[in-house]
Amino acid sequence: MSDSTARDPIAYENQPEKQRPHVLTLPTEESPADREPYSYERWLLGKLLRMAGSPPVRFELWNGELVEPEEATAEFTLRLTDHKALLTLVTNPNLAFGDLYSAGRLQVDGDLSELMEVLYRHVHKAQRQWPKWLEALWRNHSPRSTGMSEARENIHHHYDLGNDFYRLWLDDAEMQYTCAYFESPDITLEQAQLAKLEHVCRKLRLKPGMTVAEAGCGWGGLARYMAREYGVKVHAYNISKEQLAYAREEARRQKLDHLIEYIEDDYRNIDGQYDAFVSIGMLEHVGKENFPAMSQLIRRVLKPNGLALLHSIGRNRPMLMNAWIEKRIFPGAYPPSISEFVTICEEGEFSVLDVENLRLHYAQTLTHWMDRFQGHREQVTDIYDEHFARAWEMYLAGSIAAFRAGSLQLFQVVFTHGQNNELPQSRRDIYETSAVPEG
Amino acid sequence: MSDSTARDPIAYENQPEKQRPHVLTLPTEESPADREPYSYERWLLGKLLRMAGSPPVRFELWNGELVEPEEATAEFTLRLTDHKALLTLVTNPNLAFGDLYSAGRLQVDGDLSELMEVLYRHVHKAQRQWPKWLEALWRNHSPRSTGMSEARENIHHHYDLGNDFYRLWLDDAEMQYTCAYFESPDITLEQAQLAKLEHVCRKLRLKPGMTVAEAGCGWGGLARYMAREYGVKVHAYNISKEQLAYAREEARRQKLDHLIEYIEDDYRNIDGQYDAFVSIGMLEHVGKENFPAMSQLIRRVLKPNGLALLHSIGRNRPMLMNAWIEKRIFPGAYPPSISEFVTICEEGEFSVLDVENLRLHYAQTLTHWMDRFQGHREQVTDIYDEHFARAWEMYLAGSIAAFRAGSLQLFQVVFTHGQNNELPQSRRDIYETSAVPEG
Repeated sequence: MSDSTARDPIAYENQPEKQRPHVLTLPTEESPADREPYSYERWLLGKLLRMAGSPPVRFELWNGELVEPEEATAEFTLRLTDHKALLTLVTNPNLAFGDLYSAGRLQVDGDLSELMEVLYRHVHKAQRQWPKWLEALWRNHSPRSTGMSEARENIHHHYDLGNDFYRLWLDDAEMQYTCAYFESPDITLEQAQLAKLEHVCRKLRLKPGMTVAEAGCGWGGLARYMAREYGVKVHAYNISKEQLAYAREEARRQKLDHLIEYIEDDYRNIDGQYDAFVSIGMLEHVGKENFPAMSQLIRRVLKPNGLALLHSIGRNRPMLMNAWIEKRIFPGAYPPSISEFVTICEEGEFSVLDVENLRLHYAQTLTHWMDRFQGHREQVTDIYDEHFARAWEMYLAGSIAAFRAGSLQLFQVVFTHGQNNELPQSRRDIYETSAVPEG
Repeated sequence: MSDSTARDPIAYENQPEKQRPHVLTLPTEESPADREPYSYERWLLGKLLRMAGSPPVRFELWNGELVEPEEATAEFTLRLTDHKALLTLVTNPNLAFGDLYSAGRLQVDGDLSELMEVLYRHVHKAQRQWPKWLEALWRNHSPRSTGMSEARENIHHHYDLGNDFYRLWLDDAEMQYTCAYFESPDITLEQAQLAKLEHVCRKLRLKPGMTVAEAGCGWGGLARYMAREYGVKVHAYNISKEQLAYAREEARRQKLDHLIEYIEDDYRNIDGQYDAFVSIGMLEHVGKENFPAMSQLIRRVLKPNGLALLHSIGRNRPMLMNAWIEKRIFPGAYPPSISEFVTICEEGEFSVLDVENLRLHYAQTLTHWMDRFQGHREQVTDIYDEHFARAWEMYLAGSIAAFRAGSLQLFQVVFTHGQNNELPQSRRDIYETSAVPEG
């Protein structure tokens, strides 16, 4: 983030949304010496724990008092620094948990992602018994629109935080901000990200001279990999200026710019005809209401015998995005269930050829990111501040937990036009050799 | 079919449905010297060809007169033997085409499956322009119910035709009446059917001592393969008596009966807890209305870390089964689209791990069956009659065409409980060696 105002995001909380810098905005409540807890506050926390399925969690209040769980032995302690934090948490835990953690008003003894996984698993079971009103109170929120101008703003919000920031903790190989492919569990993040790129190219059966359209190309790593390793020509679309600047410079440096055109435009404006269509980690930002447009787009630009691959975070069943992630981290995000996902294929009269779920690969990817982020924590607080660093920890830890607890999935879906009979005989060719680069 | 009444199915056309033998019932219309064609009849055929998307097809009428297509050069000739056949065809071509062909009142010059593929491809495009009334007239029909007693009758209708009949044209290896796996295009049907069984076992990651529930086990080949090659214990369910008699005898002969229990019961009555659940080629007979029950069943009987595999004919988008196939061949059949298919997983809070589409493998399987069927045509007309043989040819040719034209798909879906974290690291282990048996 080059904008110097980013160093004090909180000061911008009360400005109109459009003028605020696109970084996390956090509650400002401070906690001076607080009054003693009331008994109804203890009762509320007990109730909250029961509604959350009685996880092994205790609360420590601002006066040092402990509220133990009734039906479990505590393995984690959540410290609340003030009574307003308690009320905020109880009223809307989905949103407030992340906000209060980020603000340092909710502190955790124990591993944050392990705590989050325990919470996910308990809440997942417990919420079947929630009364309707509680469901509405805790879970209701409307995702932002993802029309073209809103999409630009939503993406800017997250991806223009600054290349320097992401470089601190993403892989050194190709700056991949999507799920890696741990072909075997002990490879490095760099190997796993390159293996992901290779795995995707193999699924697309790329051959030299082919043309590829890429929707949402991030820092351009897949486009460069495809051009470099497979000799294909790529039109790669993105609406994040900072990412594109990096992508173009890197392509020039690698002398691949004659094969790659990085285009600053919305994916819906892709034109031409391509042997392959690929999109890695964009669909979850597209919004369900834009799936028909996505379908029509691919129908329009994919050649009759071309293959398409969409890689996206998903769900086991349709549900809204977690409120805090949607509001603070990924505005407009909606991870589709697999039945929602394949409506893109069905509406375009495509034939689904292959679906692979890489759920635990994303948990492992995120664990690497978290470790590297922690290793550069001082730099992050120097560039931004403690609030921002804690928010990012919550986001990474919560995501690790969500993938491990099965609340999120990672689907790769390969499909083609319904009339295409030039299909791969089997998937054996994908696995003939390891996808992990040598050396 | 051991019942001697089967030799004259037509005589039973007017009996109440329950008393009829469960074989094809066909129109009885004969055609004595017919009158001259009327001009409106020629006009109707021209109209039919245009509504079907102007395929390269001509009609030859009962007096030898030709009706050529207006917008194509004929590659196939359809001969109509009488004027009533013409009117029946025009009124409800979906149902009548198969019936008239079976009765010999519609005859084809040219390869039947190639003709059917051409028709599928043309109609597929043309039907987007059909007026609503025509859609209703030609396509509307209500699939039979598939409650427990109806399911028994629907299955009896097709699968109790007689083991001797199926033995004439299915593979000699394990009597597989489902899609084979042509790992490479030039292997034999026997190799491809064994490769299918092996491929399924690998996807289920079977290990010695595991327990498996199989719903709809046919002649029991998969159960025997799993017991023999993987040392697992199988409970295999089927409601076809003749198939089960064969399955049990074959298991005894192979000394596998200590590992396999073949159970004559509806799949909904499966009980116990299993490391794997598998069903090959049953889901398309289950009916969409029973998908929730299927989902609950698997949720109930699959162990927490177990894997389930469903293999079924499917569609690229939701649509009803072809009227003739549904009425004459597979009562109650409904091939689901992939979005409908995975509702089974989503309603049971399962996680979809792997989807593979083997569409063209089924076209190849059916081509083998057709060749073998033709090689035993005399035996078939000896056991049944010419009507029956022609109906079966229409069924096999139409199915080859449907898979080649993309009207039908073949999905294998692997899934597990949403909370299971004991997942295979990747799919590489499935492909380490060939699935085709040696020697």
